[in-house]
Amino acid sequence: MATARSTEDIDRQRGSLGAAAIGTVGSGSASTLPSHVNAAPAVVAVFETLKVRRESAVLFADIAAPPMNLLGPALVRDLVSLIQQAEADSDLKVLVFRSADPDYFISHVDVNKIKEYRQEAAKLVGEASIALLFRHLSASRLVTIAQIEGRVRAAGSEFVLACDMRFAARETAIFAQPEPAFGAVPGGGGVQHLTRLMGRGRALEVMLSAQDYNADLAERYGWINRALPADALGEFVSSLAHRIAKFPAGSLAAVKDRVNAIALAPVEDFRRDSDLFGEGARNPEGQSRLQAAFKRGFQTRDAEMDLAGLLGALD
Amino acid sequence: MATARSTEDIDRQRGSLGAAAIGTVGSGSASTLPSHVNAAPAVVAVFETLKVRRESAVLFADIAAPPMNLLGPALVRDLVSLIQQAEADSDLKVLVFRSADPDYFISHVDVNKIKEYRQEAAKLVGEASIALLFRHLSASRLVTIAQIEGRVRAAGSEFVLACDMRFAARETAIFAQPEPAFGAVPGGGGVQHLTRLMGRGRALEVMLSAQDYNADLAERYGWINRALPADALGEFVSSLAHRIAKFPAGSLAAVKDRVNAIALAPVEDFRRDSDLFGEGARNPEGQSRLQAAFKRGFQTRDAEMDLAGLLGALD
Amino acid sequence: MATARSTEDIDRQRGSLGAAAIGTVGSGSASTLPSHVNAAPAVVAVFETLKVRRESAVLFADIAAPPMNLLGPALVRDLVSLIQQAEADSDLKVLVFRSADPDYFISHVDVNKIKEYRQEAAKLVGEASIALLFRHLSASRLVTIAQIEGRVRAAGSEFVLACDMRFAARETAIFAQPEPAFGAVPGGGGVQHLTRLMGRGRALEVMLSAQDYNADLAERYGWINRALPADALGEFVSSLAHRIAKFPAGSLAAVKDRVNAIALAPVEDFRRDSDLFGEGARNPEGQSRLQAAFKRGFQTRDAEMDLAGLLGALD
Repeated sequence: MATARSTEDIDRQRGSLGAAAIGTVGSGSASTLPSHVNAAPAVVAVFETLKVRRESAVLFADIAAPPMNLLGPALVRDLVSLIQQAEADSDLKVLVFRSADPDYFISHVDVNKIKEYRQEAAKLVGEASIALLFRHLSASRLVTIAQIEGRVRAAGSEFVLACDMRFAARETAIFAQPEPAFGAVPGGGGVQHLTRLMGRGRALEVMLSAQDYNADLAERYGWINRALPADALGEFVSSLAHRIAKFPAGSLAAVKDRVNAIALAPVEDFRRDSDLFGEGARNPEGQSRLQAAFKRGFQTRDAEMDLAGLLGALD
Repeated sequence: MATARSTEDIDRQRGSLGAAAIGTVGSGSASTLPSHVNAAPAVVAVFETLKVRRESAVLFADIAAPPMNLLGPALVRDLVSLIQQAEADSDLKVLVFRSADPDYFISHVDVNKIKEYRQEAAKLVGEASIALLFRHLSASRLVTIAQIEGRVRAAGSEFVLACDMRFAARETAIFAQPEPAFGAVPGGGGVQHLTRLMGRGRALEVMLSAQDYNADLAERYGWINRALPADALGEFVSSLAHRIAKFPAGSLAAVKDRVNAIALAPVEDFRRDSDLFGEGARNPEGQSRLQAAFKRGFQTRDAEMDLAGLLGALD
Repeated sequence: MATARSTEDIDRQRGSLGAAAIGTVGSGSASTLPSHVNAAPAVVAVFETLKVRRESAVLFADIAAPPMNLLGPALVRDLVSLIQQAEADSDLKVLVFRSADPDYFISHVDVNKIKEYRQEAAKLVGEASIALLFRHLSASRLVTIAQIEGRVRAAGSEFVLACDMRFAARETAIFAQPEPAFGAVPGGGGVQHLTRLMGRGRALEVMLSAQDYNADLAERYGWINRALPADALGEFVSSLAHRIAKFPAGSLAAVKDRVNAIALAPVEDFRRDSDLFGEGARNPEGQSRLQAAFKRGFQTRDAEMDLAGLLGALD
């Protein structure tokens, strides 16, 4: 827990759960952080696609995978490392995910690297599926909070749905679960979470329409806990995270267990959705629509600012 | 798929799934419809109680059973025909239900013809139960949208709950699930859907109070997807239907399957509610209240404009 | 059903379900009550911690356990008596719970008398658990409505969650489920109800944050049916209660049964939560936090006006 490490260090020791790579830093703004319960020093870890800062029992991880925070092999690899290290650190209680990009939190998976990012997920969960990686996070003893600014679509939506709580910037957050537009079923748990959170009718609307939803409507539908003004969001989430982090770890984990027993779908349902996504991604009609989308700029930062419009314009 | 047919034609071939009776028309307003993805000609079918118009892969069915859109044998017969023909037409993806009566979408069942309308339902689902007919619609590969203006009470509410999505006119839509006022349990799936959509407390309130709910409150309770201004509703629903209809049929059906596996109650629960409704309808106290309601105008268009008031005035 | 009884009378015959102790009163404001369906006289029962008034088939029970409506042995004893007598009275259909204290509906359990109040619950449900007592109420044929003014926290929240419906005063009602702040899992059904009513994310937020929630947010989250202006709440609830009480008892019970089959958790889940609460209450870290809270005024009327602040200030 003592020293900062390079990305290569982390690469080398990946899989070694015991060796914590979230080290302290002794200078810069981190040193001015408020000290909390455990009086732990401000800490930071080095990942290629995550900027991590620790404050006491809370870890803030900012997703930084330019140009548009695609969920590809690098980001999945780093998420796996982060989760492993965080779970191995018994002093850590709360994990806050944020974005370093104001327009994209997680755009969606890199559809050209499905096999590769799935293999990274397998390193934690033993199966090549981000559905199971996300479910692992939901089942973790760690309390996870998503602070959402910018776009979360498809696997991006599913990642925040896997977190324990979701708070979004009213002015900037945009949500979509648009896989059916490409002939696929959401494969990372979206079906499981959305149906339970918002009920049959709204879940079907959200997925079958492949539309963009703003934060206010996402709140009304139960997609997120609450929409907050962008300029109040960071302080709200930080304050909530530190409040939770003061409470006994055992009761946090026990409450999560009891809630998950009711509301977290079984592994086999996540696995089935993941398999269906894979089948859908190989479907000819879906492939054809995907190619048409690429011609219009799919998986580019500018074109996906209005992905809902792009999808609606496909023939 | 080529020619318009008379109601008698449709009567004659009912049950023959393969023979599509939703034919094209070559004149009138239908010919001015916009052409969509498949460039299919505008089409129309002739039913006694449904006005049907096709636009590409979307079918609009307007309920027109004067004087108050009661769900009796004729309307159930026509719904059965429509569903059979629509499911047999592999080019069709989305079914939109609307009302030709601004005050009533579906008022409720004709309580004097329970046996008769149940027999019509049996022609599709093999059992004399509209609960199973409605569940059939929910489980269909077709995507169904209810565009609600006017009153949907009892089986009317249950019909729109069986649809995949519900959008309602803020100024005119009225919802109720009032069977307990007559000694009965909602028999067409209302208990199953309302409890899952709005939770135990609100579902109990709605059913036990037998009150009318406006569209805004119905939205807050999760009864419908959204309340929209009446003058924007039609365009919103049409646009949504056509958007969905462009997406691959396979993924639409697959998403429905996965959502239904979570949120659509098992057949036996619908059957049980249906049986309980039948028992309740024969209960002496309920019968006595029903007769008192008839004296106050139950099952007449004018008196049911304020059915909640009528029910509250019964001793 | 004819005469008023003293508290001692009630004490003497407690456990004797057949002997109704909710007697009529012949004078005072009660005599001016409106007469309803059954033209039953206004009635009142005498309990140490409940003020009870009957209007026709509706019983209003005001919780009056100064100084702060703690759920201790006396209140549990009286609730058990009330439920037993009300269930034994076949003319009674609706039970409305209110508070005689504008600031506290039920604050929470008396943590110094866990064993004692649990033993009172055992007298009705055979097990020393208020979770099972509350579940008994949910499963009862009686329709229960909570009219909430003031604070409902922990077991207070769980009591109103066990009621069939919850309406709260917008200006004064405050909700919390803060057991995790003391190292415990909510033990009276809070996990079961909140997770089903508001979904995984909001239920986790509410419990893990141990925060206070006002009535508007509680409505948005589904904790309650509706928030209403304080000056309209009483009339709204009374009118709703009397409306429901006119409907056939058989259908009220049948609807409850069907809804409970979907949304009321099994006995074993309530029992498990109850056991976990007991374990958490004996946990050293939780005990230490509880002692710290007592030093700041826990279980005193003034200090708990801002219990959320008190909990946040604990180290």
